[in-house]
Amino acid sequence: MTRVLLTGASGFIGRFALDHLVKRGVEVHAVSRTRITDAPHGVIWHEANLLDPTDVERVVQDARAEILLHLAWYAEPGLFWTSPLNLDWLAASIALARNFVSAGGRRVVVSGTCAEYDWQGGDCVEQTTPLAPATLYGVTKDAYRRVLEGFAAGGPFSLAWGRVFFLYGPREDARRLISSVTRGLLRGERTATTAGLQIRDLMHVDDVADALVSLGLSDVVGAVNIASGQPCRLRDAVEQIAEAVGRRDLLDLGGLPTRANEPQILTANVARLQTEVGFRPRWALSDGIRDTVEWWQSQLVGDAAAR
Amino acid sequence: MTRVLLTGASGFIGRFALDHLVKRGVEVHAVSRTRITDAPHGVIWHEANLLDPTDVERVVQDARAEILLHLAWYAEPGLFWTSPLNLDWLAASIALARNFVSAGGRRVVVSGTCAEYDWQGGDCVEQTTPLAPATLYGVTKDAYRRVLEGFAAGGPFSLAWGRVFFLYGPREDARRLISSVTRGLLRGERTATTAGLQIRDLMHVDDVADALVSLGLSDVVGAVNIASGQPCRLRDAVEQIAEAVGRRDLLDLGGLPTRANEPQILTANVARLQTEVGFRPRWALSDGIRDTVEWWQSQLVGDAAAR
Repeated sequence: MTRVLLTGASGFIGRFALDHLVKRGVEVHAVSRTRITDAPHGVIWHEANLLDPTDVERVVQDARAEILLHLAWYAEPGLFWTSPLNLDWLAASIALARNFVSAGGRRVVVSGTCAEYDWQGGDCVEQTTPLAPATLYGVTKDAYRRVLEGFAAGGPFSLAWGRVFFLYGPREDARRLISSVTRGLLRGERTATTAGLQIRDLMHVDDVADALVSLGLSDVVGAVNIASGQPCRLRDAVEQIAEAVGRRDLLDLGGLPTRANEPQILTANVARLQTEVGFRPRWALSDGIRDTVEWWQSQLVGDAAAR
Repeated sequence: MTRVLLTGASGFIGRFALDHLVKRGVEVHAVSRTRITDAPHGVIWHEANLLDPTDVERVVQDARAEILLHLAWYAEPGLFWTSPLNLDWLAASIALARNFVSAGGRRVVVSGTCAEYDWQGGDCVEQTTPLAPATLYGVTKDAYRRVLEGFAAGGPFSLAWGRVFFLYGPREDARRLISSVTRGLLRGERTATTAGLQIRDLMHVDDVADALVSLGLSDVVGAVNIASGQPCRLRDAVEQIAEAVGRRDLLDLGGLPTRANEPQILTANVARLQTEVGFRPRWALSDGIRDTVEWWQSQLVGDAAAR
């Protein structure tokens, strides 16, 4: 049975990845600092702090996995773009890959980011859109890929790199766009957003996790965009939330100024994901938004009951 | 008094850098795994293994330096191009810079390499020649610079990056070109080289160290080529060795095949080094080669006396 070592297993994407890995019938070794209580049956858990080199060695030795699906990174909303913690995660991630390959690992698959691309790029294509990360987060992810590509070129392992675009879904941090609008409207608060004319690719986190797992279990190498391939204006997504909640009256589109340096168009060419990996997303945006609204409803009902 | 933390202080460039730092009147904190016995007077020594995170923290705290001149890296001749140890040195170097800046360091200066450039580049210019490292050594150095540039963009420190080209001089590892030809001829052995038609920039290690120290103590930021600016064919350098030794008869130019993938021209534009840093090399090639031959003569006499 193929053994997969999944890092960031308690994170936003990681929790969904657990389900998909279990469904595929692989032996799942999940790593996170603290074990989640509602993990699917059969997952083998390793509690570890990946920033601690001794923990990294122990987990790699204990799991003896063939495939590393490395999703863990610093991800605090707002702060992660520029935090020096990106350097710590880069150094730790280099050590992790090095250890994993030394211990016999044969495939490394990492979640990268659309922030590696030059954001003037428009519709980003893996092999041709220039890489020009404008943030420390993008710079460190991009550097990690470069190092792993160089390492893989001379090593007995294959490397795939999933560049994740924009995602949303149940359990997302409440400070992020889709979550914060959903919560605000569900609570009956007047909710302001930018005009939302930006064109983005939004993908349900369940599809993101499924796509990364599919990439991990495939033989595809190199960078692959992880995105739905269905661009939309952010205002359309926000309006769908308002419709699902039934509170279009509370939505103040344009009440917030558009941020400087935000690209107008940032979307993904998904030919590699769909043709080479053979992945198709399961969630249409409207269904995904309803799913997210329902999850937040259940949370807010829980909150109210607890009061 | 300005405090400088020098890593790789017992290395080929580091030993010469010690002299130049002391001459400039700065307070020198030298780091290496083992202390050298013939260090110039006044150097404060820190024995440490930079691959050990606790050693890194201790040295940074003890030195409390303003300027980091980071020369240490894995450099075993023949092996360093592709060794996975490059990953360990990259991770350790990221941790070093992160610690140094957290502790109040205000300038980071690192020895990079001409192996970061696309070797089709010919005469390499810092800001325009494409970066396309073909080796893991070049990839990891290039990644380190990218990460440090991103870190410096949001941080309270300045970054300079010295891209070192080809160097030679006393104490160089005996397996490298200039050393091995010099030793062979001095020992009276028939010494074969390639045809030596490649055009390179050779710089005496004393000038390399002086240039890196000058860059370190300047306010110049970004990448700067560290090279003599005086291209020559390798055969000319080798013939100068034979002349200096007086054994032209033993030299077999063309006795070895030219290596595949070796660029015909790999030289450096040194406008930034000469104009912005204000550095001029002290050693002409002929003088530098005589200096190197004399040093090896003293070693071989010592070897013979010890027998």
